[in-house]
Amino acid sequence: MTDVAVDTHVYPVLWQQGQVLLIDQRKLPREYTVVAISRYGDMLTAIRDRIVRGGPALALAVAYGLCLGAFEIGTNDRDAFLERLEAIAAQFQASRPDKANLLWAVDHMVKAAQTTQGTVEQLKAQLLTIAQTLQQEDWETCRAIGRHGLAALPPSPDQLTLYTHCNHGALATSGYGTSLGIVRTAWHAERLEQIIAGETRPWLQGSRLTAWECVQEGIPVTVVTDSMAAHFMQQRRIHAVLVGADRIAANGDTLNKIGTYPLALAAKAEGVPFLVAAPFSTIDFSMETGQGMAIAQGDTTDVCQLGDTLICPPGVGAYNPLADLTPAALITAIVTEKGAIAPSDLAKHAP
Amino acid sequence: MTDVAVDTHVYPVLWQQGQVLLIDQRKLPREYTVVAISRYGDMLTAIRDRIVRGGPALALAVAYGLCLGAFEIGTNDRDAFLERLEAIAAQFQASRPDKANLLWAVDHMVKAAQTTQGTVEQLKAQLLTIAQTLQQEDWETCRAIGRHGLAALPPSPDQLTLYTHCNHGALATSGYGTSLGIVRTAWHAERLEQIIAGETRPWLQGSRLTAWECVQEGIPVTVVTDSMAAHFMQQRRIHAVLVGADRIAANGDTLNKIGTYPLALAAKAEGVPFLVAAPFSTIDFSMETGQGMAIAQGDTTDVCQLGDTLICPPGVGAYNPLADLTPAALITAIVTEKGAIAPSDLAKHAP
Repeated sequence: MTDVAVDTHVYPVLWQQGQVLLIDQRKLPREYTVVAISRYGDMLTAIRDRIVRGGPALALAVAYGLCLGAFEIGTNDRDAFLERLEAIAAQFQASRPDKANLLWAVDHMVKAAQTTQGTVEQLKAQLLTIAQTLQQEDWETCRAIGRHGLAALPPSPDQLTLYTHCNHGALATSGYGTSLGIVRTAWHAERLEQIIAGETRPWLQGSRLTAWECVQEGIPVTVVTDSMAAHFMQQRRIHAVLVGADRIAANGDTLNKIGTYPLALAAKAEGVPFLVAAPFSTIDFSMETGQGMAIAQGDTTDVCQLGDTLICPPGVGAYNPLADLTPAALITAIVTEKGAIAPSDLAKHAP
Repeated sequence: MTDVAVDTHVYPVLWQQGQVLLIDQRKLPREYTVVAISRYGDMLTAIRDRIVRGGPALALAVAYGLCLGAFEIGTNDRDAFLERLEAIAAQFQASRPDKANLLWAVDHMVKAAQTTQGTVEQLKAQLLTIAQTLQQEDWETCRAIGRHGLAALPPSPDQLTLYTHCNHGALATSGYGTSLGIVRTAWHAERLEQIIAGETRPWLQGSRLTAWECVQEGIPVTVVTDSMAAHFMQQRRIHAVLVGADRIAANGDTLNKIGTYPLALAAKAEGVPFLVAAPFSTIDFSMETGQGMAIAQGDTTDVCQLGDTLICPPGVGAYNPLADLTPAALITAIVTEKGAIAPSDLAKHAP
């Protein structure tokens, strides 16, 4: 991996001349660095180290990572190639097994290779085409989520203050965002006064990443601690709450970044619309409710430390669940590329 | 002010041979330092710099601070002495005008001086006696809150996990705590499995101070971010939530550290008892509801920075309301030295 200084729009994952360029999200907002990756093993490390994060961005990272892996396979024998590709795919699936989009992308790429006719060279070219198509499709999905989300926002006041949690923005997708895609669309439609970005402890995706993204595009943003959201809703200073989703059950129960559930409770209590923005593929129709959804646990040092600074006494333990479950009854609508859907209407859209 | 290393129990404010010893709460948990103050001007600085914090501890700090001020007044003329004392009192009232306990303590001391007969020397001695009485009374109040709180905890399971917000502990009082007084009492009654301490952004009173206090006494404590509380309530891992109060209206509406209101919403939604612990004097029977209560605003750098580390992009704004308002309907009981009182029964206790 080498660091390359690039000054461009916010594209967290880009394919460029046989390399994958990743914005190093660990270093934001202090430092804007792009990491160039040319071997699949380095992509595994980048994912594990959270240089890249966010479901859709991770999906692109593994898709291009598989391309790098494919180009590294030296054989011209189709069966040997596929066997090696599947072994690499298994490593990518193990890198973030909690991310549905990532698992889906690996699966999609491997199946495409298995069912594509032709030489190993043709398979390699086809894999790259598929990864680039995924990127284009994610862009279009985010744009559609932005349009449907804008239509689902309250008609008044004209100038809205929107609250966002975590970062489901350009940095988490191909470059436009899901919940922040709605913010961008509202901004360009001149419906946005500002966003209030919850800092999103422990990893501070809100204050570090969402605030940084907004600054890049001149979108007015104010940062608060997560514990302040309910207060500003009570004071009628927030017109809608926008969150993303890791996984959505058929009834609308939503697994998302820790801290989503208390936001939904406050929104319900204060009558503030609560919108979940996510690609339609995030809905897992095989799960009736969210009850059985596993919640990954993060490193407890993220809670006990900030950067290198220890913020609790030595030896004190911490918990670090990465997600929580928001019951469907608290959700106004799930905004996908197919439209803004009330949780009670989700079943009608089952495939 | 001089730094003195002292290894003792947790007494944030102590009078010792004409000086006031304060535990420097800014430096915890990294460093345990006691600051010795012998002039009232240094006490004003200490309060402004948050070396001492917490309503009842601030009340003691100003009471002893007024004693220091009284001893600095060089006249033997009673009227001149009182005039000078009142001027010093006004400075103490201006140091933290948002703290009801502090304002009350200043008022109490000045009135006592005004109504005490005798020489200036006798007035000075009387002021010190009153300050020491306040300290003793606070200790007894906290012990009584602990006993009443223990009785108000759920009877099962036998071993409870209690969630605490901010620090209403020894460090915030004379040395026992209000909500942490209940924790201490439960611990000594062998009813406590552990406390889960919410870190309490932005100033981290939970992870820094509550965790430190518990470690001093061997009380098991685990730290979480504020956004995790609702998740652990949903998972039935918290048996009661304990918070303090800055100010309580006659109907039970409670102003307290920012982040209290979302905890109360989660507790209500998940059927977890929500106890407010505070001295009876925190109840302001002149306010029918909490609607008109002013909320002080803190420095926004507390949100944007952690220690010296900037955690959002330069130039991004922040909000920092110090408190929020929890409606009485979400509160199970208000635990005072007079007992655990349901908000709907508060009126019966009006003076």
